[in-house]
Amino acid sequence: MFLNSTSSVSEFVGASEIGDTIGMCIPSVDPLLLGQLSVQKQYSVIGVLSARTGAGPQIMAMDDAVKATNTEVLDIELPRDTKGGAGHGSLILIGGNDPSDVRQAIQVALDGLSKRFGDVYNSPAGHLELQFTASASGACHLAFGAPIGKAYGLICGAPSGIGVVMGDTAVKTASVDVLSFASPAHGTSFSNEGILHISGDSGAVRQAVIAGREVGLKLLAELGAEPVNDFPSYIK
Amino acid sequence: MFLNSTSSVSEFVGASEIGDTIGMCIPSVDPLLLGQLSVQKQYSVIGVLSARTGAGPQIMAMDDAVKATNTEVLDIELPRDTKGGAGHGSLILIGGNDPSDVRQAIQVALDGLSKRFGDVYNSPAGHLELQFTASASGACHLAFGAPIGKAYGLICGAPSGIGVVMGDTAVKTASVDVLSFASPAHGTSFSNEGILHISGDSGAVRQAVIAGREVGLKLLAELGAEPVNDFPSYIK
Amino acid sequence: MFLNSTSSVSEFVGASEIGDTIGMCIPSVDPLLLGQLSVQKQYSVIGVLSARTGAGPQIMAMDDAVKATNTEVLDIELPRDTKGGAGHGSLILIGGNDPSDVRQAIQVALDGLSKRFGDVYNSPAGHLELQFTASASGACHLAFGAPIGKAYGLICGAPSGIGVVMGDTAVKTASVDVLSFASPAHGTSFSNEGILHISGDSGAVRQAVIAGREVGLKLLAELGAEPVNDFPSYIK
Repeated sequence: MFLNSTSSVSEFVGASEIGDTIGMCIPSVDPLLLGQLSVQKQYSVIGVLSARTGAGPQIMAMDDAVKATNTEVLDIELPRDTKGGAGHGSLILIGGNDPSDVRQAIQVALDGLSKRFGDVYNSPAGHLELQFTASASGACHLAFGAPIGKAYGLICGAPSGIGVVMGDTAVKTASVDVLSFASPAHGTSFSNEGILHISGDSGAVRQAVIAGREVGLKLLAELGAEPVNDFPSYIK
Repeated sequence: MFLNSTSSVSEFVGASEIGDTIGMCIPSVDPLLLGQLSVQKQYSVIGVLSARTGAGPQIMAMDDAVKATNTEVLDIELPRDTKGGAGHGSLILIGGNDPSDVRQAIQVALDGLSKRFGDVYNSPAGHLELQFTASASGACHLAFGAPIGKAYGLICGAPSGIGVVMGDTAVKTASVDVLSFASPAHGTSFSNEGILHISGDSGAVRQAVIAGREVGLKLLAELGAEPVNDFPSYIK
Repeated sequence: MFLNSTSSVSEFVGASEIGDTIGMCIPSVDPLLLGQLSVQKQYSVIGVLSARTGAGPQIMAMDDAVKATNTEVLDIELPRDTKGGAGHGSLILIGGNDPSDVRQAIQVALDGLSKRFGDVYNSPAGHLELQFTASASGACHLAFGAPIGKAYGLICGAPSGIGVVMGDTAVKTASVDVLSFASPAHGTSFSNEGILHISGDSGAVRQAVIAGREVGLKLLAELGAEPVNDFPSYIK
């Protein structure tokens, strides 16, 4: 599944067929380029995680990675991509003071992709994505406004109307805080997704995510084919 | 053509293979979700029409549906979609006071899709879309600024430059009011479409739309293959 | 490669299978339409170059074309397209006082596409694009902020993170002026591209572009397949 990670390019860290995701590290970024990047804080070591398909999985995998390493998330951008599908790709920049820290964070994120794609369900008509963490870190905070250290859940359906109904079911199921609802014209890069972002008590967030998944799977199946995940579901 | 509409999900109304369109009804929307949706007026019953491919046809079908039912259009959003094609998908939210009204409106819109896709012409290189109504209602008004009760016409070509020439031909053909011209950077979600919106006398609007279609079919054919419609043309 | 250019439509100039690009000329644009187009200066003769796949190549080809003809670039818009790929399509409007001038400019641009696609490299996972001119003209100025008459270079990678590393390599290689760096959320239409725009001494710009290309080819190949160009590279 994972591509060869030996390379003649010094900046290359690793790549994955999952979402066409590539991880790189610039050990000493040129100030002329750094001045043009959309980063708040200035680090000399920049890590890059970039994918054609998937934003939520890469962001969650990076959220796990920055918790485990001495790095910080600097920028998250969401291209309208998925290679003709309904969703986003992703560009994530992280910073650190030591190239080995940054390379480690990028590698941890790459290694976490299969888990974080576990609750991505695809059919020819659309897709669903569910994410959960018991303790949000910098990536979830920057991308989704999740309070750091609290449980966070993502409930997404495409075409976007399915996400509306999934979100309604989720908030009726358990007592959670609604952070926002993203839709084609608000909070997405014109993707065809409806995405509810929730926070709160860990058990409640998990319960709401699972309820959203259940109704989403039924609705998306109404468009002709059973949605399938490529990796085992991790939200139980 | 239409998919099975029996379902175990209470919110499901119906689905169509045409554009991967799904219709749903939330009989009593959760206030936490409602507060995050981009709706001006508050209804407790929310109808959802959501599609991967097509915005104009779904909007026109919903325009017909709200005229025939006791419902109101609350929000229309245009994802950049069409499953890798040049255009939009759609997310339409409607409101009503009675779930049976809302379900009926969604069903009327689903039933109207084949008509409203009648003047959508596809080729491997692009597409054309023509729409006409003798009397615009709430969906055309909200999405395109069409004056309610007056004739409205839509003249669209992709790649977008074809829409420029179609629009020029249309306004030279008959005396109509130009509402706007949408292009990749203005009035679309970065779709590759040029779209003229016109209003005015019913006969003139129809004549302009037909003239735009004629030149569009010739231009798009220059890119290699004859454009074809999947359903009978309704604008005559 | 080039499609038949005989046509019954007076506005048609020519078409190319390269990027599904069509060229047209409106000899006397209707004022009602002109008032809705996003053009600063008013010309009665409007030329249109429109493509599903490719923005840089068409813009560079038009940059060459306006230098060779008595025409001016009026508008450049970038749809999020490439038929499911990671990049843009393009809509370019030019103006002139004589239809023969405008038709000539459109034809010169169409004829230049194969050269300007020479350093576009595709793989199933993404693409690279490199462009260079020793003397930028109106199209590069309007689209990319290139100083007119100076050398200009474009260094683009997709997925976008590859463009970040290509850009870093480029600016470290030679002393150039950085005009801007475009990314999914800044300066693109949410395409999955990282694009460095540079200006300066002709030899330095060329050297930086070539260095960016070299690292980009290696990085994109890490995602599974060698990137290939459909036409001979022109930047040497």
